[in-house]
Amino acid sequence: MGKKIDLNCDMGEGFGPYSFGTDDEIIKLVSSANIACGFHAGDPNIMDHTVKMAKEHNVGIGVHIGFPDRLGFGRRDIDVSRKDLMNYIIYQIGALEAFCKKHQVEIQHVKAHGSMGNMSFVNRMIADAIVDAVQLVIPETKLYVLPGTEIHKAAEEKGISFVLEVFADRAYNEDLTLVSRKLPGAVIKNPEEAAENVLRMILEGKAKTLDGELIDIQADSVCVHGDTQGALEIVRFLKGRIEEKGIEIAPVGNWHK
Amino acid sequence: MGKKIDLNCDMGEGFGPYSFGTDDEIIKLVSSANIACGFHAGDPNIMDHTVKMAKEHNVGIGVHIGFPDRLGFGRRDIDVSRKDLMNYIIYQIGALEAFCKKHQVEIQHVKAHGSMGNMSFVNRMIADAIVDAVQLVIPETKLYVLPGTEIHKAAEEKGISFVLEVFADRAYNEDLTLVSRKLPGAVIKNPEEAAENVLRMILEGKAKTLDGELIDIQADSVCVHGDTQGALEIVRFLKGRIEEKGIEIAPVGNWHK
Amino acid sequence: MGKKIDLNCDMGEGFGPYSFGTDDEIIKLVSSANIACGFHAGDPNIMDHTVKMAKEHNVGIGVHIGFPDRLGFGRRDIDVSRKDLMNYIIYQIGALEAFCKKHQVEIQHVKAHGSMGNMSFVNRMIADAIVDAVQLVIPETKLYVLPGTEIHKAAEEKGISFVLEVFADRAYNEDLTLVSRKLPGAVIKNPEEAAENVLRMILEGKAKTLDGELIDIQADSVCVHGDTQGALEIVRFLKGRIEEKGIEIAPVGNWHK
Amino acid sequence: MGKKIDLNCDMGEGFGPYSFGTDDEIIKLVSSANIACGFHAGDPNIMDHTVKMAKEHNVGIGVHIGFPDRLGFGRRDIDVSRKDLMNYIIYQIGALEAFCKKHQVEIQHVKAHGSMGNMSFVNRMIADAIVDAVQLVIPETKLYVLPGTEIHKAAEEKGISFVLEVFADRAYNEDLTLVSRKLPGAVIKNPEEAAENVLRMILEGKAKTLDGELIDIQADSVCVHGDTQGALEIVRFLKGRIEEKGIEIAPVGNWHK
Repeated sequence: MGKKIDLNCDMGEGFGPYSFGTDDEIIKLVSSANIACGFHAGDPNIMDHTVKMAKEHNVGIGVHIGFPDRLGFGRRDIDVSRKDLMNYIIYQIGALEAFCKKHQVEIQHVKAHGSMGNMSFVNRMIADAIVDAVQLVIPETKLYVLPGTEIHKAAEEKGISFVLEVFADRAYNEDLTLVSRKLPGAVIKNPEEAAENVLRMILEGKAKTLDGELIDIQADSVCVHGDTQGALEIVRFLKGRIEEKGIEIAPVGNWHK
Repeated sequence: MGKKIDLNCDMGEGFGPYSFGTDDEIIKLVSSANIACGFHAGDPNIMDHTVKMAKEHNVGIGVHIGFPDRLGFGRRDIDVSRKDLMNYIIYQIGALEAFCKKHQVEIQHVKAHGSMGNMSFVNRMIADAIVDAVQLVIPETKLYVLPGTEIHKAAEEKGISFVLEVFADRAYNEDLTLVSRKLPGAVIKNPEEAAENVLRMILEGKAKTLDGELIDIQADSVCVHGDTQGALEIVRFLKGRIEEKGIEIAPVGNWHK
Repeated sequence: MGKKIDLNCDMGEGFGPYSFGTDDEIIKLVSSANIACGFHAGDPNIMDHTVKMAKEHNVGIGVHIGFPDRLGFGRRDIDVSRKDLMNYIIYQIGALEAFCKKHQVEIQHVKAHGSMGNMSFVNRMIADAIVDAVQLVIPETKLYVLPGTEIHKAAEEKGISFVLEVFADRAYNEDLTLVSRKLPGAVIKNPEEAAENVLRMILEGKAKTLDGELIDIQADSVCVHGDTQGALEIVRFLKGRIEEKGIEIAPVGNWHK
Repeated sequence: MGKKIDLNCDMGEGFGPYSFGTDDEIIKLVSSANIACGFHAGDPNIMDHTVKMAKEHNVGIGVHIGFPDRLGFGRRDIDVSRKDLMNYIIYQIGALEAFCKKHQVEIQHVKAHGSMGNMSFVNRMIADAIVDAVQLVIPETKLYVLPGTEIHKAAEEKGISFVLEVFADRAYNEDLTLVSRKLPGAVIKNPEEAAENVLRMILEGKAKTLDGELIDIQADSVCVHGDTQGALEIVRFLKGRIEEKGIEIAPVGNWHK
């Protein structure tokens, strides 16, 4: 079997009269979609449309769980209790699953959005709540985790299937955490450099730190963004570079053990 | 097999810091619970708690679908489109189903709340949207309908399993519609009279109109309310009168064809 | 004094992460802004920004009152009670007024958005509730009304100052109501034709019906839209044609008796 | 002039179909009401009713500013930005002020609810944002502050009029902070002991620590709760004990310099 990689992107982030991103274009380029479920973004109509599109394009469907904070787009830390968080997650999974039933597709994965994601990297209670909630209602689903974080550890210890996610456009620290956006060099803007990074991670299992050191990393899925025309262009370029190396871009649910 | 009847009641209608009704008492008396799903009322914590309680007391679990209008408690007509309504319903079904998966129980039924319910009696588009949404995601589920209404007709024509619901405390018109609350005699306040009505409907298949005429009616489930201590007492009384006639109160999913 | 006219446009209709329309461009072209107040659209940050911009460009500030229905963008009829509606309006007026206090400007007008507006044309209870709410808290403010509608009559009878609003791009019936969008010819897409219509209404006090008949109409303010680049171009064209006729475009609060 | 004290209580914390607390009783006992403004709790109808009641009972009206988090009742920390927070506060002040205009009363004070309050004790950015927002739109209003906290310091430095608030039922640390609820003795449940505490603070300017030490404290307003029948009884008792000492209970706006 040839080398495979998953490209995942956030989708369905509109709400009521508002649309967001370039979903109808990006869905043709990626292999997995993280679909907002009406807490930080998204609504029933948009969820229905996004699941339908994902099915048409053979894109893996993910529950993009978020905090109940539309005003802040799920990007503000909220000190939720473990019980609250678990029930918020179960609710969102169920809501998306109903649209999957309608369209006769399966949920492929779960990914935590915004602050919930960031908190899951460093806060074990949050990480545990996510893993536990997923295991209670869709235990066969894959959970996206950032290598080396608390949610990675929680997933490993609790025995849930997980997917190691990397970023094309971010520099890594030696401990595999992402370099803070406040530091120079944290965000890689050159598409060629981003593509090289991704290929290095996929083919050699190495990430480059700010100091130029190479560290071990495993990449199952690359997170990309399609919220602007410019971002879309970068994904197109990246996809081209990956495929010309003979690496197949495919939904993680189709090939991941 | 002896005669059986279902008693259904709205539950889980609190929200965040607010509780509503006397759920912990009424659940011991009824056989089916209509659980709010976060649109007109309810929230993930309350849904989790209510499903858990229903399971403990062998009470049938129903999705109480409502309009997205917490401020108006789902009791205001909203001119939703067919598409919007279907997606709102699918979303709510999914959300409750996830808590059922967690607690390893099945959804027994779907019932439309407040204005959505009232509109479904007279508006065929609304009625069709409800039936279609249920058939798309939980086709084996039973739908509560008021005899003779548009939603009854839609359920019959589309071949979904439905449950005929009657009211203990309301007078009927000759066409089986409920007498408007604005008319004298519309609401039956005497518990003994309400009990007689219910027994007449169950045992004789007859409802009494305001003029004292007897009309044919079929009763699978009796809707009761437990939102005040007084309402709770009426349900206790009713339950006693039903059971002393040898009629078994049981979830409609257990015995209904 | 030369002839004057007001051009009004909806603004501040974004929410949280979402923006909507081309506010930063349209504000340079119009003389009055209808600002959403967090019910159908808008949020505190956007209200603050829009009031600030309006002040900078000497644009009259209006409270764009709407139904509490973000999901439906205030465009769905809701059967609110008179009491509910009055309190919703008072709340929205207050919220916007606080931002006006911060920026040391005054509220110029009130306009009903979407379904609230449409209902106010034909439903006297809704029309009365709007006029009463405005008179209770900002009695000196001007209310935008469509000529000949219930809200026009309510404003006249209750003695509130009102502004007669016309549409550049819509055909009129003989009774001054707008031709239904479902009919051919209802919407005028040719900018030149729209400009002629507006000039005829301003200079001659006549509107043209679908049959080509001329009917009397009085125009204090012309409603324009800036939600797309194309719409913006039409406003630019319209503004040019109005000004080349020597008509001054100015906030209605500056010149209207 | 005899000694005076203010008793303040949270009110108007219902929402839509939900009521909360015993507002109609407690309003007869206290001198100031902190009224929820639709962010953490409250809605336009309830705000209208509560302002009306406060006016009837000569109770001082306060804006009870909270985080936009109904689900968590404003009791969860949210990492809002300074700009967001200021605009949320301005919005809430305006909304309540409109109901005050309707009822022809003035806003007397502002108090931060729940987590916003707690954060303002220790987080200077939050404290500054609150003081700045109030100064921008209602600069003559009094701000309730906990003695010795960041918001007390911010109010002093920025020159806003403030009211020193104490708790009848909480033990103090030597630095005037409240003893954590997790520690034994933190909450005083004996009404007689609570009354003694309050009288000691009013008459002697002393609070008692857990160790029994007496520390200096100044009390302008005592915070009480009326959310249960039991809480209401405690307020009645407290009011009796205060008044039998010849201390007048009066809205802080009537007597505070």
